[in-house]
Amino acid sequence: MSSPVYPTSGDLPAQSQHQSHGLAATHAPRIAIEAITPSLDQGRFAPKAIVDEAVVVKATIFADGHDMLAAALCWHDDEGQQQRVPMRQVKPLGLDVWEGHFTPQRVGRHGFIIEAWWDVYATYHHELLKKHQAGVPIELELEEGRRLIERAAERSAEVLNASLAAILEQFRLAQQEADLVALLLSSETVKLMQEADNRPHLTRSDVLYPLDVERLKARFASWYELFPRSETDDPNRHGTFKDVHRRLPLIRDMGFDVLYFPPIHPVGRAHRKGPNNTLIAGPSDPGSPYAIGSEEGGHEAIHPELGTREDFRDLVRVAEDHGLEIALDFAIQCSPDHPWLKEHPGWFSWRPDGSIRYAENPPKKYQDIVNVDFYAEEAIPSLWLELRNVVQGWVDEGVKIFRVDNPHTKPLPFWEWLIADIRQRDPDVIFLAEAFTRPAMMLRLGKLGFTQSYTYFTWRHTKAELTEYFTQLNESPLRDGYRPNFFVNTPDINPYFLQSSGRAGFLIRAALATMGSGLWGMYSGFELCEGAPVPGKEEYLDSEKYQLRLRDYSAPRQHHL
Amino acid sequence: MSSPVYPTSGDLPAQSQHQSHGLAATHAPRIAIEAITPSLDQGRFAPKAIVDEAVVVKATIFADGHDMLAAALCWHDDEGQQQRVPMRQVKPLGLDVWEGHFTPQRVGRHGFIIEAWWDVYATYHHELLKKHQAGVPIELELEEGRRLIERAAERSAEVLNASLAAILEQFRLAQQEADLVALLLSSETVKLMQEADNRPHLTRSDVLYPLDVERLKARFASWYELFPRSETDDPNRHGTFKDVHRRLPLIRDMGFDVLYFPPIHPVGRAHRKGPNNTLIAGPSDPGSPYAIGSEEGGHEAIHPELGTREDFRDLVRVAEDHGLEIALDFAIQCSPDHPWLKEHPGWFSWRPDGSIRYAENPPKKYQDIVNVDFYAEEAIPSLWLELRNVVQGWVDEGVKIFRVDNPHTKPLPFWEWLIADIRQRDPDVIFLAEAFTRPAMMLRLGKLGFTQSYTYFTWRHTKAELTEYFTQLNESPLRDGYRPNFFVNTPDINPYFLQSSGRAGFLIRAALATMGSGLWGMYSGFELCEGAPVPGKEEYLDSEKYQLRLRDYSAPRQHHL
Repeated sequence: MSSPVYPTSGDLPAQSQHQSHGLAATHAPRIAIEAITPSLDQGRFAPKAIVDEAVVVKATIFADGHDMLAAALCWHDDEGQQQRVPMRQVKPLGLDVWEGHFTPQRVGRHGFIIEAWWDVYATYHHELLKKHQAGVPIELELEEGRRLIERAAERSAEVLNASLAAILEQFRLAQQEADLVALLLSSETVKLMQEADNRPHLTRSDVLYPLDVERLKARFASWYELFPRSETDDPNRHGTFKDVHRRLPLIRDMGFDVLYFPPIHPVGRAHRKGPNNTLIAGPSDPGSPYAIGSEEGGHEAIHPELGTREDFRDLVRVAEDHGLEIALDFAIQCSPDHPWLKEHPGWFSWRPDGSIRYAENPPKKYQDIVNVDFYAEEAIPSLWLELRNVVQGWVDEGVKIFRVDNPHTKPLPFWEWLIADIRQRDPDVIFLAEAFTRPAMMLRLGKLGFTQSYTYFTWRHTKAELTEYFTQLNESPLRDGYRPNFFVNTPDINPYFLQSSGRAGFLIRAALATMGSGLWGMYSGFELCEGAPVPGKEEYLDSEKYQLRLRDYSAPRQHHL
Repeated sequence: MSSPVYPTSGDLPAQSQHQSHGLAATHAPRIAIEAITPSLDQGRFAPKAIVDEAVVVKATIFADGHDMLAAALCWHDDEGQQQRVPMRQVKPLGLDVWEGHFTPQRVGRHGFIIEAWWDVYATYHHELLKKHQAGVPIELELEEGRRLIERAAERSAEVLNASLAAILEQFRLAQQEADLVALLLSSETVKLMQEADNRPHLTRSDVLYPLDVERLKARFASWYELFPRSETDDPNRHGTFKDVHRRLPLIRDMGFDVLYFPPIHPVGRAHRKGPNNTLIAGPSDPGSPYAIGSEEGGHEAIHPELGTREDFRDLVRVAEDHGLEIALDFAIQCSPDHPWLKEHPGWFSWRPDGSIRYAENPPKKYQDIVNVDFYAEEAIPSLWLELRNVVQGWVDEGVKIFRVDNPHTKPLPFWEWLIADIRQRDPDVIFLAEAFTRPAMMLRLGKLGFTQSYTYFTWRHTKAELTEYFTQLNESPLRDGYRPNFFVNTPDINPYFLQSSGRAGFLIRAALATMGSGLWGMYSGFELCEGAPVPGKEEYLDSEKYQLRLRDYSAPRQHHL
């Protein structure tokens, strides 16, 4: 990733420097460049783009008077390779909106600025043509044109100088006014004058505008979520990565290309939850996979009952052969049995009795989970680095997609740093924010770098609600900073509507999700029209979060989607 | 005018500096402070405010997790005097919008920043109260509260330390849990804990937000425009400043408080315009007052036929006695007879034949006027300083209101500098931008410092047009950067509607202008329902711009407004 590479208006344009006679305003930018899009918070954050898809940059550009301006879009890719493309004023001209575009060829952090300057020859050309056509005297204009070319020749070297000199010579030899006019208006002269342009009053946009270019799957993908441990025929046998293999063709046949697993790490025993979120687990209850960590390891480890590391690598490979990319869950929380509590007690906030407060995401309570304290003195920076290393470790295993659990309860600067750090080495990595919270936070997470986000889609049902929400999502700033991934259900959300809608409701929601965004997701069971709730709640009865859940995917077709 | 006085998030909060273990993100601002209003282009320009009127500042403030935050608005006046007021979260709370307000007591450039931090004791207080009311065990919470107070005492000195120590002593002596709870929740404890707050995770808004505080007349005034030279009973005698005196009570009685004159400077002879904008003037034609400058002087001088400098001063004084403030025209253009052409030929752009291009504001042509070249080598900075001195000279004569002619044809950085320069010495000075041009430029001039602006009001007639336009004017960004002065007519604009509307039309437009904005203006003749046009044009027939125009203000009342 490169540093900003352009001067901006904070720097003086080179040709103005000789003018600084002690009055700064006389060399301040003469041209206004406003309302640059795409942008987020005036360049503070990077809007989202996709490799090989055109980025259309717009800006309102204007200056005093009636002279013609020219503008260019200067952009660079993640290696700092710079290119410059012209911008054009778009209709209606009275709005002073200019537009340019480029198509990034690489993923990674890009950047752009806009330049605008006085287009002296275009102004002259326009006026000469108008007066010539009106038949008014143009002697003075012809001489002014000759002088413009003369000055351009003076400041040019070599071939360009020679070409302009040749035009001046033609000018000297021309007999008729019409010949002079034709010479001055010719496309050859215009082209040479553009080459020799010293771009008077060059003004640059005030900051470097960043842009995150990602791969296509960032905005166009279909997610399928399953608990590998449920992939078993025997309620007494824990499913494994090996068991998942047989499902791969079926999942791909439904049209999915991302296969996402809840946490695959060792599950703690302390305060393990029993079926239906009860506080006491029996000896054979598997516990919530979100209670991460036991003596068998933490976030870097694989739950032994799922298989070996080699089993996992094998599944990643075979899934890829089926056109499915594996996505993992990144849930920064610990079972009280997580090794970090012993190895790094300074990463946690201890209460006066030597306990740690259990986690909450009101109104939900997670008695089997404790949170790290990002700002504990001993956590800085070792906890931050360890969490980065956890993610990097899975990236090194070939996992390039992460669903991040509750990112809104972890510090914003942590995410901005972590995502940038990971993507600096591997810009193909995709992060999906599982935040169900207030609107400003939802957007901010996208601005900070989250590739995709869970949404309010689940709670938008009526035409009016859907129209309003889809409109918001397609307008600035959400359009630029927030990519909605429409999940029709999740292990945490059994939508009220589906609890009693029957198959028709499932079809409706699937249609809305797939048509409403390039990104949608389904948690297994949806395709079987599962909807039995914990009465009165948006939770599934006998939730798979706390127990294995065997499903019969060979059920008669009329019960499927 | 003071420089920015606060640290912003570019500086590290003091208490985070010890945390910088080589990972910048760990001491980056933890709290998001977004969408600050009033603001223009994220602090680049100063929104407008009025002295003695409350400024309501809003921001979206949020952070990770569920802890409570506190926020403050820190503002300073033009002398750098700082004050801090608390901000409060406003409903609906889910939008995370906070609000604070202050009432500036002085005119001039103000500034503000927003601070937010973790409100540890408020979070604790909220949780203790909730658990106490729920009747759950709170032993741990009580001890945590005691420790919070203990740490606050440790970092406090003198009286505050003693007060907190006294609370800890009461805590030690208390017998009942209810007493401990009461002590921890008491308003006295809350107040002391606020005083001792070390404001963890203090975050400041990213830049200093400027604010221009002006006097009331900046947003609430009624302008009346007249040509002093027409204030005569005899078409062969040029009216004078002395003649204006008799009109003052009548103008004031109509409700006006600003009396604005087109340019009062010597009028050039070269290419002087005759009646109805003809290109040849007779010997007794007065010429356009916008053709400024003759051998009798330029922008600093008074047209001898209007009177002496003492006459002008006298008129300013007497007008003030009548509650009328004199406004002058600042029109940066020259008759070819202007002394600057001889004294400062380097301020102009000469054509190959030794002439200067006459001025145009398409489609209008001003054959009697030439423009200066702000960027001519010899004009920097002497022309800029001379123009500033011209304005300052009139300010020194007691003129604090300027109507600026065609500011959109002069450089934007010139206006930003000139207005700031003048207002730095006298922030009471008001500038009205007479720009009729594209929307982006109209707003930009307001952002640069113009107090008020001419508008599109003249061309908004239907209910739909007026609703749309008034709505735009009252929404961001126009609301903050652009104060509309609704002129019902001007010497340049004889609205088509009024040319045939009769008295009813004049009443309609006056009602709309006075009710639609706190600022409106009328050019004399409107109150007599004058509307005779140059056929097919928006110009007045026998326009006062090119000839004296005697009016009978004693005409029968039914012809008046």
